Amino acid sequence: MTSFLYRCTDCGRDYPRESVRYLCPECGKAYKPGIPLVGVLEAVFDYAAIHAGFDRLEPDWQLFCAVEHEFHPPLPVGNTPLAKVARLGTELGLPHLWVKNDGLNPSGSLKDRASFLVAAEALRIGEKRIVAASTGNAASALAAVCASAGLEALIFVPEKAPKAKLVQMVLAGARVVPVKGTYDDAFRLSLEYTAQRGGLNRNTAYHPLTLEGKKTAGLEIWAQLGFQVPDAIFVSVGDGVILGGVHKAFVDLQRAGLIQRLPRLIGVQAGASDAIHRYVQTGIYSDAPDPSTKADSISVVCPSNAHGARKAILESKGLTLAVSDDEILQAQKRLLSRTGIFTEPAGAAALAGLVKLQAGPDRLNVGDRVVLLATGHGLKDVEAPLSRVSIPAAIQPVLEAVEL
Amino acid sequence: MTSFLYRCTDCGRDYPRESVRYLCPECGKAYKPGIPLVGVLEAVFDYAAIHAGFDRLEPDWQLFCAVEHEFHPPLPVGNTPLAKVARLGTELGLPHLWVKNDGLNPSGSLKDRASFLVAAEALRIGEKRIVAASTGNAASALAAVCASAGLEALIFVPEKAPKAKLVQMVLAGARVVPVKGTYDDAFRLSLEYTAQRGGLNRNTAYHPLTLEGKKTAGLEIWAQLGFQVPDAIFVSVGDGVILGGVHKAFVDLQRAGLIQRLPRLIGVQAGASDAIHRYVQTGIYSDAPDPSTKADSISVVCPSNAHGARKAILESKGLTLAVSDDEILQAQKRLLSRTGIFTEPAGAAALAGLVKLQAGPDRLNVGDRVVLLATGHGLKDVEAPLSRVSIPAAIQPVLEAVEL
Repeated sequence: MTSFLYRCTDCGRDYPRESVRYLCPECGKAYKPGIPLVGVLEAVFDYAAIHAGFDRLEPDWQLFCAVEHEFHPPLPVGNTPLAKVARLGTELGLPHLWVKNDGLNPSGSLKDRASFLVAAEALRIGEKRIVAASTGNAASALAAVCASAGLEALIFVPEKAPKAKLVQMVLAGARVVPVKGTYDDAFRLSLEYTAQRGGLNRNTAYHPLTLEGKKTAGLEIWAQLGFQVPDAIFVSVGDGVILGGVHKAFVDLQRAGLIQRLPRLIGVQAGASDAIHRYVQTGIYSDAPDPSTKADSISVVCPSNAHGARKAILESKGLTLAVSDDEILQAQKRLLSRTGIFTEPAGAAALAGLVKLQAGPDRLNVGDRVVLLATGHGLKDVEAPLSRVSIPAAIQPVLEAVEL
Repeated sequence: MTSFLYRCTDCGRDYPRESVRYLCPECGKAYKPGIPLVGVLEAVFDYAAIHAGFDRLEPDWQLFCAVEHEFHPPLPVGNTPLAKVARLGTELGLPHLWVKNDGLNPSGSLKDRASFLVAAEALRIGEKRIVAASTGNAASALAAVCASAGLEALIFVPEKAPKAKLVQMVLAGARVVPVKGTYDDAFRLSLEYTAQRGGLNRNTAYHPLTLEGKKTAGLEIWAQLGFQVPDAIFVSVGDGVILGGVHKAFVDLQRAGLIQRLPRLIGVQAGASDAIHRYVQTGIYSDAPDPSTKADSISVVCPSNAHGARKAILESKGLTLAVSDDEILQAQKRLLSRTGIFTEPAGAAALAGLVKLQAGPDRLNVGDRVVLLATGHGLKDVEAPLSRVSIPAAIQPVLEAVEL
């Protein structure tokens, strides 16, 4: 590990690692549940040490990691495949197209990366209970990582979370509390819980190591492309923390002098859950009051990392798009039927965004190297795509019954 | 690739690679649908060349591969994590216990390995259509791999296959034919199809490269253990082809002089689907007439690779066990809640077998290095464990409603 301190992404104040836990003690005062987080902290490393210590022939990723290796849970997380998808790329006029399939994390989503690092931090500081609010994936991730590490997971989920996700977290031994309300209600409740009853809060962006954990997806993309920066990365956006984490990977690499430029980040939201998209477009934040979408993992009224996500888009010279559920489900089918990669609707939003962009005036250049980040496993929610498939009727088991 | 020929596992006759496709032309005549396959072929490599060419510092797995790299589909398959599971191991008196999590293949099961290699073979010989019978996992695997490679998948499934698996294969663009009957009916029908209408048949063990594909799981276990042979590997058993494939990995390594001994293979079957277990115990084969089990992936009346599986058990000085559905579902929950690894009931059968063995007189030694092979993803079938979980009632989103 390289030494680091926490810096407020709003006021720029620095804090020693051991002196803060969640938000900036100053700016964080201005935060109240129901608005995007203010005072989100980021880890700022000793980049000269990273520069000196990083060797592409034997990459030591621990240099970029904010928790010592000895505290890491025993569940292998990350190191998911990056697949070059030539069939799909050809269709979209992008011969250099890849999919980073983060559904192949142990609990089935990229959220394992954040849960892993927060659990490592809990082990380091001696907290036995981790508390989170989640639409499902972060909760499943936390439940799985805590199971491997012998930690207790307490999870607030909106009652409408897909059954597969609920089964998974309960079976993992987590204490699950379904909440009558939205994800945002669950988020607020979990904050009240840790404030008044204790435990380590793993809420996304609220605990700074969630961003650091998600960062590893970006580091892997860079390494898997042969230590090249792609031209664009498409990321589905709910709270905006995956987007922020991927951005942080390249910011860290740039600060360490290992890369010269940032990839453009293209954030894709579901049409009804588009608070960040509108914030980027107008500069003015407002909630998405009814964020209902089949892409449940990116359904959010008030994205916790709205400010950080907007900053990442602007800094990277990227853009945001909003897509309909219909476009998302089409993209899910298209991705699977062209690449063999099965991602949940939220993950497919990234492809829906690419399809939309390629159909318009801002289409990418044919030479661009483009990565789609598939954030969760398709098996997380097989109800969502049911409208897109018709399962044929069963036949008698004789060859004559098989159509030619 | 190293040159190879096909050898009949029954009569020992050798055949040049290009002269045969499925079973031994001589022994295979004795096969008729409804009995275990006879005349199954195995690939026999130039082991001296492997010995000379294999370098543990830069392992070239292509040396063990029966299809040239240029024909491999673009979907990354295999390279799944091997997790040391200390919490679970301690409970079972086995401090050196690992889980190979093959549910993290792209379609969610180890079957991707077989489909991958058969698809590579189809690309090599110019077949555009691959035909298979499957309880679900092999079909999802074939559909995914074919999607990535631009091949057509035609799949016969028993109509009772779990919905998640059906959704997955249809969404991937496969032509799916649900069959009124058992997996065995689907198996027979697919053979009739390729015999009379063409296409490449991918049925397990029937196409010899299914075994070769599954072999890669065993090679990876060896490499991930630091090129050490474990003392025992627990494998859930339906048709017996995964068991046979894992065995073949170590047989190849031994023939190449890279290892000195074979791991004991412990095959675990569901109580109602125990044809191989009884065959090993008695030496006399008979069907499992009503193989109904919640572990749908290992439900089979007449295991296609019964002879090969029995041979692998005997050669490796292993054994077989039968476990109840109750033991399987308990094991599924135990695995997830102690390790964070979510495997489908069929995959959990391996742990159920280990639990059973440890409770009896044949328990393993405390120093043994033991691997559990988790063959499929838990999200494949979230209905099965529903009886094991109770999802709490939703509460109002206020802290007072949260129990202490």
